[in-house]
Amino acid sequence: MSSDDGAIEVPEGYRPLDTDTLAPYLAGHPALAARLGGDPAGWRVDEVGDGNLNLVFLVRGPAGGLCVKQALPYVRLVGESWPLPLDRAFYEHEALVEHGRHAPGLMPAVYRFDPTLMLTAMELLEPHIIMRRGMIQGIRYPRAADDMAEYMARTLFFTSDLGMGAAEKKARVALFCGNTALCKITEDLIFTEPYMVHDNNRWTAPQLDDIAAAFRADAPLKRAVSRLKCRFMGSAEALIHGDLHTGSIMVTQEDTRVIDPEFAFYGPKGFDTGAFVGNLLLNYFSQDGHASERDDRSAYKAWVLETVEAFWRGFAQRYGALWAERRGDAYPAALFAGADGAASLARARDAAIADLLSDTIQFAGAKMIRRLLGIAHNIDFEWIEDPDRRAACERPALLLGRELVANPAAYPAIEAVTRAAQALDARSRT
Amino acid sequence: MSSDDGAIEVPEGYRPLDTDTLAPYLAGHPALAARLGGDPAGWRVDEVGDGNLNLVFLVRGPAGGLCVKQALPYVRLVGESWPLPLDRAFYEHEALVEHGRHAPGLMPAVYRFDPTLMLTAMELLEPHIIMRRGMIQGIRYPRAADDMAEYMARTLFFTSDLGMGAAEKKARVALFCGNTALCKITEDLIFTEPYMVHDNNRWTAPQLDDIAAAFRADAPLKRAVSRLKCRFMGSAEALIHGDLHTGSIMVTQEDTRVIDPEFAFYGPKGFDTGAFVGNLLLNYFSQDGHASERDDRSAYKAWVLETVEAFWRGFAQRYGALWAERRGDAYPAALFAGADGAASLARARDAAIADLLSDTIQFAGAKMIRRLLGIAHNIDFEWIEDPDRRAACERPALLLGRELVANPAAYPAIEAVTRAAQALDARSRT
Repeated sequence: MSSDDGAIEVPEGYRPLDTDTLAPYLAGHPALAARLGGDPAGWRVDEVGDGNLNLVFLVRGPAGGLCVKQALPYVRLVGESWPLPLDRAFYEHEALVEHGRHAPGLMPAVYRFDPTLMLTAMELLEPHIIMRRGMIQGIRYPRAADDMAEYMARTLFFTSDLGMGAAEKKARVALFCGNTALCKITEDLIFTEPYMVHDNNRWTAPQLDDIAAAFRADAPLKRAVSRLKCRFMGSAEALIHGDLHTGSIMVTQEDTRVIDPEFAFYGPKGFDTGAFVGNLLLNYFSQDGHASERDDRSAYKAWVLETVEAFWRGFAQRYGALWAERRGDAYPAALFAGADGAASLARARDAAIADLLSDTIQFAGAKMIRRLLGIAHNIDFEWIEDPDRRAACERPALLLGRELVANPAAYPAIEAVTRAAQALDARSRT
Repeated sequence: MSSDDGAIEVPEGYRPLDTDTLAPYLAGHPALAARLGGDPAGWRVDEVGDGNLNLVFLVRGPAGGLCVKQALPYVRLVGESWPLPLDRAFYEHEALVEHGRHAPGLMPAVYRFDPTLMLTAMELLEPHIIMRRGMIQGIRYPRAADDMAEYMARTLFFTSDLGMGAAEKKARVALFCGNTALCKITEDLIFTEPYMVHDNNRWTAPQLDDIAAAFRADAPLKRAVSRLKCRFMGSAEALIHGDLHTGSIMVTQEDTRVIDPEFAFYGPKGFDTGAFVGNLLLNYFSQDGHASERDDRSAYKAWVLETVEAFWRGFAQRYGALWAERRGDAYPAALFAGADGAASLARARDAAIADLLSDTIQFAGAKMIRRLLGIAHNIDFEWIEDPDRRAACERPALLLGRELVANPAAYPAIEAVTRAAQALDARSRT
């Protein structure tokens, strides 16, 4: 979608909307206007884009609200010097529709996609907040583990060869092959830059200079992360969200919604499960930095690790149960008939889930490292003002990340991961 | 490309050519006519399609020859009851051009693709014969191992993330995603039907009834082949030929050409290397069936196994050497700088090649089994008239195939495979 000079081509008629022009646009679409109700002049429009890439408007009228997300032809965080194709909005909409169909109630409802403005109008989630923000405050979300297990089990199963026929799946693979600009961001920012000297990188310095240098010189780690990068680039297993950290999840005590699948493409299933697990673990290690005299966060830390375990157990149970609903070409029923066949299929399923746990663990580790040494950091740590205190939280997170990437065979169960997190955390405080 | 009633849609103007209508067609294309030379009335046209799917014409004129291959909207072997999309000719042409570019001199030159007639005019290979036919006669091809190593090393390397940028590769992945009908044939005929009761299957009966039944009841084998099927369906590693048996190779003593890449798509590299290895091993086991008093074929059998080993060693050497020419996004140079980086990259490369050998061995085993229990058999065995003698050759081939699919870890080097072949062959004759 980019022209020869590197600028991004925009559709004829594309223009970025603002808080003044959005209401007239919505007023021109009766179905959207009806959701807001009343006189457009009275609609309240707030631009809240706190992500890195897009415009995000919240619109409220007497009858209800809307969230409107519009792509800009560059990375908002950086500016026009970093162009980014608008068609990511197309892929995001496609993924919202497809994942939403497989995991009903776990994404915002989509009302309209405008291919000229590269804009999606969707359900306004209230009173949801970004899960990461709630976790920094120490708020527990009792539904999060199960809901995320359900979301990933269903989306990863039904978009894979277990859940759809080969020709239909290949057509979806082809469709999402166009989302290369977003894949390239992941390839560079997660699997490459943190392991080399690069202007994009930053970390808590000078406190973590030693470990950043050690990782850049760590041959087994760089081999492992490069192998993982190849898996990311060459595995067309399922339609993955592609950016499933806790900043892509909105929660209340009763509800969980996954947002922002603009990095969606056909990739390795473990990249989504790993993103969630890795970001939970990052939050775990950040908690000491948010401890106060009133709350040392030790109980919350235990809850975070319980959530990691509950998520994986819930995912494995649900994903495994879905194998009984196979409707793709993988593991054909004719090869697993009768009681013996059922027992054999159960073994095959359990082996596949064990493989997926290994992938999950490796991708989780890579996600942890990139948030501490690469360009994009998490507010879990960024909001710890004292750099010594922050670095003390970040160091054990980096050590665990390194372990998970380079040595996944040492973690045959999710409990081995949470035990290692506890051990590194305890050691860092002695 | 198929309409609702299952019939295949054909392009406006498509018509199957025959020995009468081909010469006028070629005469209408001056560049083709010039290759033949002289008066079209004097051109000799033979229809020789001995494959399963297409029309193949050999055309000779005073100045030279042409091979013209045209797709039919059904499987020629079966008839109009098995429709098959014509666009396979498009994918074949794309693969001929792309593989031919990466492996110059190892495929026929392509002169014209006609998207209306779904026809490709290419170099007439003379005096080449199909490698399988030569091997049945016990003819040695001193270049075959090295040439096939070169072909696969270069095509699999340069079409992968090691050899091209991610966006370019994804565009190729998307293009070949449309070749689903041919992929489906592989999924069904190789990875599914031989392991179940199916009308398509046949084997030397009743001699092999026991082993066919044992394979249908063999839970570890069916789990392993199903896992392999998932790898075939979900790995977009490289543009593979997709049907690289010894019937897709034309040889002389001095030259080797790969033909017929109509099954091409982005899949696992090991499927191509495994197809070649598996079909060499099938020929090895068939040799006793072609032995005569004059030639017991023992020396030729040794040559076949030497060719298996020489192919793999040559492939690994060439494919490994190409890593120094990486121009894709995989294993970025910045992560492997300096002498330490070079040593680390060598380890990563060797590990990748070891993984590829494991895939090769498993796919080889699956290819062997399908040619003995499934719908499509090899003339290596079919030309052994006495069914007892044929079955005696086929049984150890099946046993090795089963081992390779279900137990690849037992074969950490290609020599372990050839030793196992010898041992099974020796045991079958005691």
